[in-house]
Order: sequence, then C-alpha cells, then structure tokens
Amino acid sequence: SPSVKCISLVFSFQQIQFVEDKQEFSRFPTKTGRRSLSRSISQSSTDSYSSAASYTDSSDDETSPRDKTQVNSKGGTDFCVKNIKQAEFGRREIEIAEQDMSALISLRKRAQSEKPLAGAKIVGCTHITAQTAVLIETLVALGAQCRWTACNIYSTQNEVAAALTETGVAVFAWKGESEDDFWWCIDRCVTTEGWQPNMILDDGGDLTHWMYKKYPNVFKKIRGIVEESVTGVHRLYQLSKAGKLCVPAMNVNDSVTKQKFDNLYCCRESILDGLKRTTDVMFGGKQVVVCGYGEVGKGCCAALKALGAIVYVTEIDPICALQACMDGFRVVKLNEVIRLVDIIITCTGNKNVVTRDQLDRMKNGSIVCNMGHSNTEIDVASLRTPELTWERVRSQVDHVIWPDGKRVILLAEGRLLNLSCSTVPTFVLSITATTQALALIELYNAPEGRYKQDVYLLPKKMDEYVASLHLATFDAHLTELSDEQAKYLGLNKNGPFKPNYYRYKPRS
Amino acid sequence: SPSVKCISLVFSFQQIQFVEDKQEFSRFPTKTGRRSLSRSISQSSTDSYSSAASYTDSSDDETSPRDKTQVNSKGGTDFCVKNIKQAEFGRREIEIAEQDMSALISLRKRAQSEKPLAGAKIVGCTHITAQTAVLIETLVALGAQCRWTACNIYSTQNEVAAALTETGVAVFAWKGESEDDFWWCIDRCVTTEGWQPNMILDDGGDLTHWMYKKYPNVFKKIRGIVEESVTGVHRLYQLSKAGKLCVPAMNVNDSVTKQKFDNLYCCRESILDGLKRTTDVMFGGKQVVVCGYGEVGKGCCAALKALGAIVYVTEIDPICALQACMDGFRVVKLNEVIRLVDIIITCTGNKNVVTRDQLDRMKNGSIVCNMGHSNTEIDVASLRTPELTWERVRSQVDHVIWPDGKRVILLAEGRLLNLSCSTVPTFVLSITATTQALALIELYNAPEGRYKQDVYLLPKKMDEYVASLHLATFDAHLTELSDEQAKYLGLNKNGPFKPNYYRYKPRS
Amino acid sequence: SPSVKCISLVFSFQQIQFVEDKQEFSRFPTKTGRRSLSRSISQSSTDSYSSAASYTDSSDDETSPRDKTQVNSKGGTDFCVKNIKQAEFGRREIEIAEQDMSALISLRKRAQSEKPLAGAKIVGCTHITAQTAVLIETLVALGAQCRWTACNIYSTQNEVAAALTETGVAVFAWKGESEDDFWWCIDRCVTTEGWQPNMILDDGGDLTHWMYKKYPNVFKKIRGIVEESVTGVHRLYQLSKAGKLCVPAMNVNDSVTKQKFDNLYCCRESILDGLKRTTDVMFGGKQVVVCGYGEVGKGCCAALKALGAIVYVTEIDPICALQACMDGFRVVKLNEVIRLVDIIITCTGNKNVVTRDQLDRMKNGSIVCNMGHSNTEIDVASLRTPELTWERVRSQVDHVIWPDGKRVILLAEGRLLNLSCSTVPTFVLSITATTQALALIELYNAPEGRYKQDVYLLPKKMDEYVASLHLATFDAHLTELSDEQAKYLGLNKNGPFKPNYYRYKPRS
Amino acid sequence: SPSVKCISLVFSFQQIQFVEDKQEFSRFPTKTGRRSLSRSISQSSTDSYSSAASYTDSSDDETSPRDKTQVNSKGGTDFCVKNIKQAEFGRREIEIAEQDMSALISLRKRAQSEKPLAGAKIVGCTHITAQTAVLIETLVALGAQCRWTACNIYSTQNEVAAALTETGVAVFAWKGESEDDFWWCIDRCVTTEGWQPNMILDDGGDLTHWMYKKYPNVFKKIRGIVEESVTGVHRLYQLSKAGKLCVPAMNVNDSVTKQKFDNLYCCRESILDGLKRTTDVMFGGKQVVVCGYGEVGKGCCAALKALGAIVYVTEIDPICALQACMDGFRVVKLNEVIRLVDIIITCTGNKNVVTRDQLDRMKNGSIVCNMGHSNTEIDVASLRTPELTWERVRSQVDHVIWPDGKRVILLAEGRLLNLSCSTVPTFVLSITATTQALALIELYNAPEGRYKQDVYLLPKKMDEYVASLHLATFDAHLTELSDEQAKYLGLNKNGPFKPNYYRYKPRS
Repeated sequence: SPSVKCISLVFSFQQIQFVEDKQEFSRFPTKTGRRSLSRSISQSSTDSYSSAASYTDSSDDETSPRDKTQVNSKGGTDFCVKNIKQAEFGRREIEIAEQDMSALISLRKRAQSEKPLAGAKIVGCTHITAQTAVLIETLVALGAQCRWTACNIYSTQNEVAAALTETGVAVFAWKGESEDDFWWCIDRCVTTEGWQPNMILDDGGDLTHWMYKKYPNVFKKIRGIVEESVTGVHRLYQLSKAGKLCVPAMNVNDSVTKQKFDNLYCCRESILDGLKRTTDVMFGGKQVVVCGYGEVGKGCCAALKALGAIVYVTEIDPICALQACMDGFRVVKLNEVIRLVDIIITCTGNKNVVTRDQLDRMKNGSIVCNMGHSNTEIDVASLRTPELTWERVRSQVDHVIWPDGKRVILLAEGRLLNLSCSTVPTFVLSITATTQALALIELYNAPEGRYKQDVYLLPKKMDEYVASLHLATFDAHLTELSDEQAKYLGLNKNGPFKPNYYRYKPRS
Repeated sequence: SPSVKCISLVFSFQQIQFVEDKQEFSRFPTKTGRRSLSRSISQSSTDSYSSAASYTDSSDDETSPRDKTQVNSKGGTDFCVKNIKQAEFGRREIEIAEQDMSALISLRKRAQSEKPLAGAKIVGCTHITAQTAVLIETLVALGAQCRWTACNIYSTQNEVAAALTETGVAVFAWKGESEDDFWWCIDRCVTTEGWQPNMILDDGGDLTHWMYKKYPNVFKKIRGIVEESVTGVHRLYQLSKAGKLCVPAMNVNDSVTKQKFDNLYCCRESILDGLKRTTDVMFGGKQVVVCGYGEVGKGCCAALKALGAIVYVTEIDPICALQACMDGFRVVKLNEVIRLVDIIITCTGNKNVVTRDQLDRMKNGSIVCNMGHSNTEIDVASLRTPELTWERVRSQVDHVIWPDGKRVILLAEGRLLNLSCSTVPTFVLSITATTQALALIELYNAPEGRYKQDVYLLPKKMDEYVASLHLATFDAHLTELSDEQAKYLGLNKNGPFKPNYYRYKPRS
Repeated sequence: SPSVKCISLVFSFQQIQFVEDKQEFSRFPTKTGRRSLSRSISQSSTDSYSSAASYTDSSDDETSPRDKTQVNSKGGTDFCVKNIKQAEFGRREIEIAEQDMSALISLRKRAQSEKPLAGAKIVGCTHITAQTAVLIETLVALGAQCRWTACNIYSTQNEVAAALTETGVAVFAWKGESEDDFWWCIDRCVTTEGWQPNMILDDGGDLTHWMYKKYPNVFKKIRGIVEESVTGVHRLYQLSKAGKLCVPAMNVNDSVTKQKFDNLYCCRESILDGLKRTTDVMFGGKQVVVCGYGEVGKGCCAALKALGAIVYVTEIDPICALQACMDGFRVVKLNEVIRLVDIIITCTGNKNVVTRDQLDRMKNGSIVCNMGHSNTEIDVASLRTPELTWERVRSQVDHVIWPDGKRVILLAEGRLLNLSCSTVPTFVLSITATTQALALIELYNAPEGRYKQDVYLLPKKMDEYVASLHLATFDAHLTELSDEQAKYLGLNKNGPFKPNYYRYKPRS
Repeated sequence: SPSVKCISLVFSFQQIQFVEDKQEFSRFPTKTGRRSLSRSISQSSTDSYSSAASYTDSSDDETSPRDKTQVNSKGGTDFCVKNIKQAEFGRREIEIAEQDMSALISLRKRAQSEKPLAGAKIVGCTHITAQTAVLIETLVALGAQCRWTACNIYSTQNEVAAALTETGVAVFAWKGESEDDFWWCIDRCVTTEGWQPNMILDDGGDLTHWMYKKYPNVFKKIRGIVEESVTGVHRLYQLSKAGKLCVPAMNVNDSVTKQKFDNLYCCRESILDGLKRTTDVMFGGKQVVVCGYGEVGKGCCAALKALGAIVYVTEIDPICALQACMDGFRVVKLNEVIRLVDIIITCTGNKNVVTRDQLDRMKNGSIVCNMGHSNTEIDVASLRTPELTWERVRSQVDHVIWPDGKRVILLAEGRLLNLSCSTVPTFVLSITATTQALALIELYNAPEGRYKQDVYLLPKKMDEYVASLHLATFDAHLTELSDEQAKYLGLNKNGPFKPNYYRYKPRS
C-alpha cells in the first residue's frame, strides 16, 4: 500500500518557507482583527464548550483538585485531576473514540517499532477529551513522554483525564478550572524535577507564551512547536515577525485536509444538528439566510437546501457571490429578506453582520445563530437593553422578547453554534490529531537546518498522507500512477500530487 | 454601485509578479506533459469543433475565399471571409449572443466615453463566433482598431465573420481553412500597409509565435499580449524562461472566475448535454465511473448523481479521494467496477486512463467518453485493430463492435465531449471575453514599468470585477462592508477580498 | 382568501363510505399482522417516549397523584395531575408550541364566533404534550367542554397537564403511571357526575374500548369518534366488521396530508437527528443500507444521500425497487452488503428483516436502528444470548459486544428511532391536531344520516383544507382557478382538486 | 427468479372492474376537457414529433408511396412504405433499440416456446419507431400475426418501417402522410383478403374508431383492445358508458410503472434536454417558475434545482402546494414572479395558465415552454398579433419580439417540449411496450368471462411484473419474503404487493 511507503518519507521533506504568509499576517494588527472562518475547536480558553460525555460530570464533590491528594494504581502522584476513580469510565470513552480514529491507530501500529518519538518529551495544552487521549496514547506508543494540560477551563472530560493519569501521563486539568487554576496547571505541566520538555503541542498558544515568558531557557531548547489554532498561529507569526521566535513551529491549522473537514464537511452536518437539538425546528420549507458563502457558508447552505429549506445568501465578495448564484442561491442584501426569513445564520468572520435594527424587524419566532468565527457576528450586546426580556428556555436557547410580544430565538448567545450546541464528529478530530502527530514526528526528526526559526505550513505530502490514512475508513481504494503516467504528468508516483505552495483558501 | 467605482481602479493595479508560477512551469519539459484540466475552448487549431450555429453553413459554394473578390457595403475590401452576403444572418446571431453577454455590454457602456483603448491596434486570433464578435465590437467601442483571424480551422461561423467585416473589422477567416490558409490568414491579419499592431489577443499562441518569428521588429513594439489558452500560456512561460519574451503578457486562462466556470459549473451541465445529445441515454439508475475528481470530475459527478445515476470515482490523489468520499461517492480502482458500469467518463488530464484491456471487459452497450484534457485519456488507438469493427451511428458516435457482437459506444473518438458534442453557454464565454477585455485595457493603460517582460496573472481585483459585472445577470446584490467592518477585517471596502497570490487550484 | 370560504363548507361534506377499505382491513387477522409504515406517535400505551420537555420532570416528589389533594387557582379539584404548581412552566411550553401551530390558532380565531363545538362534550385520550394542549384549548375556544387522559403512561408532560388543569380542563394524567393508574385515569375521565360525553378523540383505541365495554349506554349516545392511530383504526374496523360499531368514526390516520408529513417529510429529518443525537456519527462517506423503499425509506434515503452517505436499498416490491433505481440507489439483497455497511436502517413494517445471522456478519462499530413500524424488524431478541455482552453507553444506545470484541451499536433496542431518539416537529403535530379538530367539527355538525355506524376517511376537501391552513407558515400563495379554467378542468374552484377515493398509498 | 414464476401467473388474474373510474370519466364531457398530465407520446395524429433517427429521412424522392410498387426480398408486396431499400438502415436502428429493451427481449425469450399469442391476429396503430419494431417483432416471436399502421402522420421512421416490412410484417406508414393517406393506411391495415384481426393495439383510438364505425362485424369479433393513450382511453370509456363497447379493453396508460416513468422520471431528464438543445441556456443561477406541481412539475423542479436554478412553483391544490414547500420551493402566484424569472415552464393540464398580459411583463430574453398536456397552457394565440414580430431562430425556437425590442423565446410554439425538442429514452418506451405486450397476452388468453365488455386497468400484478422485468437493466436484486414474513404481512410471496385498487395518482 502507498501509505506504508510514505512513513519513511515523512522524515525527508524539504523545507518550504512561506514568506508571503508572514507578510499577509502582518496586515492584521490585532488578534481580533484576523479574518478567519476556521472551525478550530480552540476559540479561547474560556469559551463554553459542550461535550457529548459531559453527562458523567454531575459529581457533587466541590473540593478543588489542587487541594486533594490522589494516587493512581501504580502509586504515581504526578498529576492533578478531578477524580482518579473515574478512570474506568474514561477508559470506556477512549475505547469508543478509538473505533472512529482508525487512522491514528494505524499510524500507531505502523510506527510503533520505529519509535520515531523516542526521546521526545512533549508538553501539550489542548482540549482534554477522549479523542485527545487517543492522540496522547499514540504519541506515547511512538516513544514520547507526555505531560498535558487543558487549553480551555470548561472542556475537560474529567473521566478521560483520570484514565490518562492512570496510564502514567501527567495530566493537570479538570472541568471548571478558575483562571488561576488554568495557569497553575500549565506551570505544573511544563516543569517538573528532572524533566525538561523538548517539544510543544499547543492549541491557542497559551502554553507556548507561558514558556516563552517564564522559562525562556527551556523554551530555547525546544526542537519544535506544533500549533493547532488560528489564534495560536497568529501569535506565532507575530513572534516570528518580531524576530523573537527561536524555535521552528508548524502551523497545522491551515492544512488542506483539516480545513476542508473543519469547515465544509463538518459544518454541513453540524448546522442541522445544532439547530435541531436546540429548537426541534423542521427544516422543510423554512426560509433561511446564510451570511457569508465561504466554506462554512457553503456547508450550511448545501445541507439546508438538501433538506428542503429555501436559502438566501449575503456576500461581500463578488466571486463567492457568483458561486452562490451558480449553486442555486439568491444573493441578497440582508435587509431585503430580514422580514421574510425564519432563520439567520452568520458565517462571515466579520462583526455586526446582524444589527439590532435588523433584529427589530425579524419575524416572531425566527431563529438567529452564528457558525462564523467569534461571537461578534450578531450584535448580541445590542439586545441587552431594558425594553427586551430574555428568557432562557433551554440550555443554549434564549427567547429575546420584544415589548409587543415578538420572540426571537437566540442560540448560544451568538457564540459558535457548532461548538456550543452540537458535537464535532470523532472522525474530524481524528484528522486533526493525525496531522498533529505527523507534524510532531516531522519536527522532531528533521535533520539539522531543515527547519529554521520560523512558522511552517504542513508539507503537502504529509497533508496527503493524513488523507490517505483516513481513506480506509471508507474502504476507498486509490489508483496508483504507472511509471509512464507519472512521467507524462511530471509527478512522483507517491505524490505530492499538488505543489507545496498550494494551500487551502476559503474561496475556491 | 460598486462596479462603477471599480472601472477607474482598473488602471491602477499594482504589479504582482508570480515567481513561483514560472518555476512550477519549468518542471514540465514538454507541451504534452502539462497536467491541466482546463476546459479552454482552444485545444489546437485543428480540433473538430461543434458550433450551435453551424446549420447556416450548408453553402454549396466551393470557391476558396482567397480566390474571391468581395466588397462590403461601405466599399471596403480589406478582409477575407466565406460570403459577405451572410452578414445579415450573422448580425442576428450576434444580437442573440448579446442578450447573454450583458456584462460585456455593460462594460462597453461604462467605458465608452473614456475610450480606454483609444489608439490601441489589436490583432486577435481566436475562435470566430457570435460571442467573440460581441467582444470585438466592444473593443472597437472602447476605441480600438481590430484585425482578426481564427485560431481554429473549423470553428469559424462564416456568417458572423461576414457581419464583422460589414462593420469594418478586418476579418480573415472561414470555416474549413487548409493549414496553408490558416497561416495566410494570420499573416494578412498582422500586416497591412500603414498599420502596425500594438496589442495581441491570442488563443493558442499561434499568432504570437508567427509575429515573434516573422516580424520580430513589430513584435518588440507590442505593448501587451493577452493569452487565453493553456497551450498558449505554456508557450509564453517557455519564452519567458528562455529570456526571449520582450513583451508583457497576461495569462487570463488561470483567473479564478474563468476556471470555476470553465470547469466546475460548465461541465456540470455539459456532461448531461453531451451524453444526451449523442446517445439519448436515460441517466436514472445508470452506473457511472468518473475517473478523476478535480473540478471537472466534481461537476460531472454532481450532475449525474442529481439525476439518479450511481457514480463511482477513481483518483490518484488522497485529498481528492477523501473529498469524493465525503461527497458520497465510492472511490474505487477502475478494474473493480469495469464490468459493472454503463458509462465511463475520464476527467484526469492523464493518459491511458482507460486501456484496451479494460475496454475488452466492459458491458455490451456501455458508453465511453472523455471530459478531460486531451484525447489520450482513453486509449482509442488500441481500438483501431482489425478484430474490432467500427460503425459510425451518428455524428460523433461510434459503435466499436467486438467479435462476439458486444458494442461499446465511443463518443467523439475520445476527444473532449463537451467541445465536440455540446455547446459552451454564452454566459461562460461572456466571462472569458470580459476578462480578455479588461486585461487588454489594463496592459494598454498600465504606467511605464508596472509590467515587465514577463507573464502575469490577472490581478485579483480585476478577477473580482469580472465576477461583479456578471452578478447583474442573476439580479444578485452584493453586501458592502461598512468602514468599521473593513477596518476590522483589514480589507479595502472595494476589494480585493482575497490576496493576489491566491489563485484557483483544481483540488480545493 | 380561499381558506376563509372553506370553513363554512366544512359542515356540508357529502358522505363517502369506503367499502373497499373495510374489506382490505379484514385481510389482517391480528393487530400485529397489520403492515403499516405509519409514523403515528401512538404506538402503544407503554412504549417509552422521549419528550423534548422532559427536563422539567426531575421532581423528587414520590407521592402518587392519586393520593394527593390539589386545588387549582379557581378552586377546582376535578383533575389529577402530578403537581398543579408546575402550571406556569407548562403555560410557557404551550405558548412556545403555539408559535409553530399557527394553523390551529387560525382555525381557533376563524371559528370562534361560530362556536361550532358549542354543546360538544369531548373525552380525549392522547399524548399530553404542549401541542395537544394547543388542540384542547382550541376545542374549548370553539365551544367544547373537554376531559382528558393520557394514551401512554410515560409521555405526559406534567407541567402541561398542570397548566391545562389550571384553565379548567379536567385532566387525569401524569408521567409514569402504573397500568392500574392508566385505566383509573380513563375511567375518571369518562364519567363524572352530571356530565356525559358526546364525542371521543382517541389515540390507540383504549378509551373507546373502555367505554364500549364498561359504559355501553353512554357509548351509544356518542355522536362521533375521531381516531388517530393505526392500531385504533384497526380496532374500529374490526368492531365495524363485527357489526358492533354503533357510532360513526373517522379515521384521521390515513389523511394524505398527515401521512406525507408523518412519513416522508418527518422521517427525512428525524433519521438524521436520531442518528446524530445518539451516536454523533458523521454521515459523509458512510455506507448505509435502508431496508424498504416506501415513504419512510424514501425520506431516510433522500436525507442520507444529501449529506454524502452512500445508500443501498432492499425491497420486496418491484415497483418500489424500480423507483429506488431511478432515484440513484443500488437495490441489493441485504446479504450482499451486510459486511460492507456502517449503518442499517429498517423501514419495512415487516419482521425479522435483520436476523442474528446478519448481525453476526456486520462490521465492528456498525449501527443498527429501526424507523419502521414495530420493534420486530430487527431480531433484537436473538441478540439476548449469553455469549454477547450488552453495554449501555448512553440513553437509547447499547453496544452489543461479540466474543471477539466486535461491537454493534443498537439504537433504542430496535424500537422506533424517530420516537425514541428524536422529536416530532411541532409543525407536524399541528397538521395532526388540525385534522383532528376538523374531524370533530364535521362529525359533531353533520346532519342526521350523513354518517352511519361506520368508519370514514377524512373527506378530501377537509384534507385539502388542513393543507391550506398550513400554507401561511411558508408564506405560500395558492393560485385560484378562473371560472373558465375550472370549467375546462371540470373542477369546483374551491376544490376538492382530487376525487374522494384518492388517498395516500405508500408506494406512489 | 421470481420473474420466471410470474409468467404463468399472468394468465390467471382475476377480473377487477373499476366502476369508479368510469364515473370519474363521465365528469369530463369533452376530449379537451380532460385534465391529465400524462406524457403519453400519443397526443394526436397530427402533432409534430421529433425523432432521433430522422436524419436518415432526407430522401429527395417525392413520389407518394401509394403510387409506387415495391417488393421485399421475399417477393412480398402487402405493405406500403417510403422505400424498401432503407431496410438495412432500419435494421441497425432496431438492433440499437434492442440493447435498451432487454425486458422485452427477455419476455420474448421466456414466452417463445409457449407461444402465448399463437393464433393472435393483431392490428396495431402506433408511432412506428425502432422501439415499436422491437415490440412488434416480440409479438411475432410469441406467435402473433401483425399488420401495422402509424398513429401520427409525422412520426414514422421510414427505414424502420422498411425493415419491418422486410421481415414480413405488413406495414402501411410513412413520414409525412396526408390525412387521406392516414385513413387509407388504417383501412389497408385492418382488412386484407383472407385475414381478420382478433386483437387491437391502439394509440389514440383512431384505428379502434375506424373499425367500430366501418367494420362493425369485424370489430365485434375482436377479443381485446389494448389502448395506450389518454385520448384513446377516454374514447373507450365514453363508448363503454354509452353501452357500445362490445369488446374488453385494457387501459395501459394508467399503469403505475408507465405513469411514474412517463411523468416524473422522464420529465426530470427531458426538461433539461429540451431546454438545452433549443437554447443552450445555462441552468446555474437561472430563476425559473414551474406552473403545476404534479408528477411532471415535480420532475422538472427536481432537475432544475439540482443544476443550480432557483425554482418557484405555482399551484391550485393546497396539498401539492404544501409538498412544494417541503421540497424547498417557494409557492407563489405567477404575477408575483413574472417580471423576475428567466424561464416559465407549464405543467398543469390547464389552459391559459400563462396569459398575454403576463407575457407582456416578462424580461427580455426569457424563455417560455410547456411540459403539460396540450398546447393551450400558454396562450400562444394571443401572441399572434400584428404588433409582435415572430422570428424563427432555430427549429422549434421562435423569438417573439415586442415593439420595444424585447424578445421572449417561445419553444415548440407552446406544444409539448419533451416531445418536440427532446427524445423519449428507449428505456421508457421499453416499459410501455412491455406493458402492451403483457396486456395483449392477458386479454388473448383470459378464460371466457374474465373480461367483459368494459375498460380495465392493468392488474396490479402485471404492473409489478413489468417493473420486475426492468430491474435487470439496473442489476437490481429483489428481496423475497420468507413464508413467515409473507404470513405476517398477509401477502402472497410473489405479489401483488399492493392491492389492485391502488393506482397511480398525480398528487401523491
């Protein structure tokens, strides 16, 4: 199989430095100014986050984990989780997740004898979920030592943290940390007696920043950083621009595979799921306006149209607008349809796309939600005025009631619907996790000089390799080029099939 | 309207030189080795080409136009067409075409008072059709003088050539030229007493090459070349690489708008049309394999699935394969389904994708056709053996009959189905023509030094402007950014909305 | 508007007696033998039933309502609910439901001055939900007196029951009744001092049967029965066949509007919702087999195909099979794909469609669920053997684990997925409720002799009227026939537009 | 296989007399008043009809066939066709048609040894095309003697007529008959020395009527009539109602299989084909209004939506309107969108659905066409006024030009687009032909008394048998019921799976 051959090639990618990416980045002066439609699960460390497995968290134990002494079954105490006794429940969750992460398991098996991460000491700061656990345990299987903390104070699955702890991973995380807890956990994770990290896996850049600031000498010795989020990548580019990035970093947020799945394919499903779980709305015949026709908007529009909704699109970009036309959507200004529509969905990355003035004109019973980047797309703040009554009817569902009795149904208070009211399929998380693992392997094994003190995109070939590992799930069979065909096309038979400078852009 | 504002901006684009594009190009040593899925209508100057209006061509006049003396109604004789008397019929065809080319008409009206092409002397070598006539007459309305010839010996609509001639454009072209005629026409077009061209609009590069070789001194004084085809662009890049391109050239083949329409949207319709017109096949329930899941393949798959066919996909690239999976297609090797399928469609840009061995195993009555780049995708040559009988059952439709009576239906002898058996919608040609017109305006008006002796991509902003001109057709209304939003996004309110280095790639 | 005119016509429908329906019915000797794909929410009085609003039911009060004395705010005590204090919460649920039941509200407003149900004394036995409450309050607004009980021991929304009670409706129902409670409630509902019912609205036939058996003299004086469920209709036909039905009854289960919504449109959405809520499965690329291509199967197939699944169909009926082909699905025997598929969905109305032998051959991690009629479609009983381990991973989700570790994910233990793991949209319930209200009005106001002691289908015109009342939700505008056109078509301008004998059949 | 078993059952169907059908019919006093959306290829004997194979008809021979003496290769002269020498070309067309009519070929093979039509003397009056030839030759193979004539003066494929003649079938038909020729051919077909027909296969009822009027004694001895068209069926019902139908007749027009294919599935494809061949319009982004949401309208809407058009629906029937809503189409009155749309398609069976007043308000360049029943849906007559100019731009395409220059593109002068500008797929014709063959077998072999002097619908089981014969084309595999399952469902394992009274209705 072509995949097997690839694994040895992973370690010999050429360096490609994307000068123009940094330049582009410098145009955005602030973190909030970054236009992005990424569906990264890392928004910020304090966003609320819904987890499928949160039902096991109804513990009444109010003691802070920092005040407890816990010992795992091997006698270890180098961890801090909610309740080590939940380990067995967590193990079950991890096993279920493994079933949909066969690509990672397959990577684990293939590279296990080579131990490409032997000697790697990885500190990680990500959401701590069953899927992350599969990643961490894969890294361990490949030879790494891992210490882990959470990138979000709400998202930790306590039982999974317990299960990881039980197998010897030093986890410092629980659901419902205070901000002080958050930084305490990061600090405990980074440093411990007789152990210094040489690799970072980060989601949001908080861990990276903490090390850069507090432990500059440790930071300098890091061999590579793998960063997953838009925000974290942005912070790295800024550091690089300022000449302060002393470590090679890999931006895995912008890999083609991840982007397509995080945006188009995942949103195509989560828009339906998010709306249904919160409102039980029937899609057939509903009039919907989708603001923004990037990948996220395309996914939302396709799904809603397929289920019988009548969908309008708003766009600022004529090329995206023309695509919307050809895909069968009327392109309108929001004001043209605001009195008409049953549902508004924002997917722009922009701010104040839906204003108070427009909300005032919506129909009774209409639904407003956001699938875009931040919680500024809908001007929710403008709804917090005395004449409007807010009524929380379900978790994540507010009725905002006008003086005349009109109700507008606001979901997740304008935060990301797909993160707040839906779940990210394990398969999508598998793509992200596999990409992260490969990026760690690549950076850790790269020969001296291949990567400099800069931010790199995932080499095209590794992107293709991640995709190929996931084809087995669909029993999909790749065609291989004959020698003659490869020559005709000027390609290597094993790829890459696209040049390295090709990368995902939302508009295409 | 935003479009009105744009027109003045067209003349102040910054120079962007795409170094990496040229490098990529140099990897392909030969013309045939270029992998491309472009649906450009210029394949080569001798490809057969079906034209909707060819029904007016049943003239019995066998005299060569070169041997005739014709005078138009203004007494002019500087042209050579089949029959000047057909001008009225041609005018009707042009008027019909104008109805679907409102973007070009709109450009004509907007820029008419500015006359941005005043002084421009343009030699053109393209298909001569009603749609091209609308372009040429637009260029004239903007101030240019034009002389024109055909890039293909079969594709000229004689009555349109006559109509153009009647309005004073010097046209040298007719349907059914010999190769000698072809070069004679080019030569007559380029040179005439007291007139020297200063701009070239080419499709295929033959005119450019002829001038470069035969009239180097005239060529040097050209202010800009606009080239439409893959082949022509490739020849320009080679010239540039060899340091012999002494004129700035613009590659309009790779504009985002044109590519999306030529590939995804146009093929989505023409695959159905091409199959139906030739075979009257019912799509519902048919099993189809589409080889290649680039934009062309995506368009074919989407259309066939929508009409009830069961579609399989073959792919070499794991990222495209994963997209096919997510879009609901089984990804297989051709051999897995070869005995099963009713229809094979190739869209790869590769060669020998369907081999004789595979054709031997197809079902009786199955259809084989090509939507890809060249006529090498299906190994048609392998079918020209004594044991197989060919039976021409309709124009462009052959039954290839095996000794046991099995028939395989081969369309267009493996040439491009959409060009041979379908028509390109006027709307798509409008996008191409508008892009060409804007590129000519830009090159002709660019300040000294903006464009050097190199090949340029269409500036992003012009690409967006072409798109915006076509939105009116769909009564689509763009949303405009507020100042605050533009600042938040770091964008100019009038675009470009994507960076210049962003360009279309088949895979995304 | 045509709707306004219709209301007066409702009371003058001609009698249509459907002889052939009764004959057909007699072919099915037993209740379980009835082939039906109806998605009626009434399965049996003991089926588990998920309710969106059950979250308010976490009351710790363990006292049986029968042992409590409760008084509503008007001093009334003729009711028995869980907790009258929940009335305010219930009112909010009812108000929310009203927003999606505008057809019923519209009927309420239009007929309110006529009071077409003045004098009607209705006993009802249905699910007691917010949507039913809107129906009951409509009946009251039209002049009826109502007493109500639950047709299912689990499905009552206690707070809604409390709210109804508060407005004077005598409700006897709570969530979690014992069987003894169930019959006690019915009995209390039917009889009370100084009040005798003259109309019945039933769902399942239990109330009707109780009255028929226990209060034959009261039963004889009933003016009409409206029955909603397949089972209840079947029992009525049997009674009629046995010559014991002394009251006209109307079968509202088989109205065209209700059937299309309960089956095709509702299932199209609930299959996605049911699968997603229970398993978070990603649909893209999944291989699914749908057993049965009636309306339910058609809905499931369309939705899954639209979201990128690859769908196979099994069928026994060649006409349905041919439709599946034309709609783009491969028609296979289950055994051909059993090892291949990720998901099996049964929609047949048949039994043992998926056998233990087939379950043994399924892939690890595959999902099995039922959208059909009963819980016999999947041979769940065969999975309850010692060598298989059952693991309840979530509510309604069991992992059945084979000795080799293979897990098959069984949803709702093979009961109806859409009822167990999804919610029925309020809009669909609005159609049912409106149909019930119109049927009650018709039977109550019919002139002597129009309806005999038999079971009737809803007159076509009323079916059309229900549909027309729901068009406003979609801002849909009907075209009216001109006199000339009506004459040309031989139709009345106000309908019916189809003959009365036309009725919904799953296959068309 | 179940199909094999069925063939013997075909001859033992029970009689089912559809009293209500006749009653319904009597409501329509005139032929033109019949509301029907049937896509039958028989409209009237003078409708223009496009044939894929008409390209061979450019013969210059102007001699009337009636004035020629022709002899086939066996010396026979009992026929009258255009040119017997075209027989070889016709044979090739027949062979090609056979490839897509495997169901008929399969029936031919299965029943050939039984010769169920031995002794049958069939006169036929249908379109004479390659597909009809496959039917006729099947009837001959099953034992029948056949004489044939054309039901339409334009539709005969001369070369096919020649080929049939060559094999001994007495054909009297050619393309371009005069009305006198038409009746002369029928007369010659019916009577010849020493031969009296005992079966009729008719399409339109002209042959039947001729025999009934002119040869009443021959007519009385006919054992059965099979009628294919709406019009012919209507005439039979009228005859029956008047007590003058002395022969059993079978209405094959209303079989479920035929109806679904003639309407939904066939129109789904032919709307695209008809529009594309005539106008080369691009569907993406076009705004289209479809008048009527019966099966034909549903097919048109589905196809256009799938290719990116934005589709509006007009309806008179609230149930159909509600379905349109749920399928994602805005339901409007025509006047609401008349200024907006690019294309109008009528599918109503009604008249004057598009009026002159509305045509006056359409956009320049908009397209108007009819997929409905007759050519009265669009008020074409109102366009034939002096102030409007008609310009024939292509075959079947007229530009109607308003005084201000506005052009409306009228297709096929308002006649059926799918018949005039598209082709009916052979597969659909195969279904019709197979149904006709089975109906002939059934009527010819029915025991005395099974069929009386009345009009019958095709027995459900035969409908299912036709469907099952066509499944092989799709490699579709039916599931068979187990004994236990059949008992549970109360069905015979071999069908019928639906009761006989179930039949196709446009609305469901």
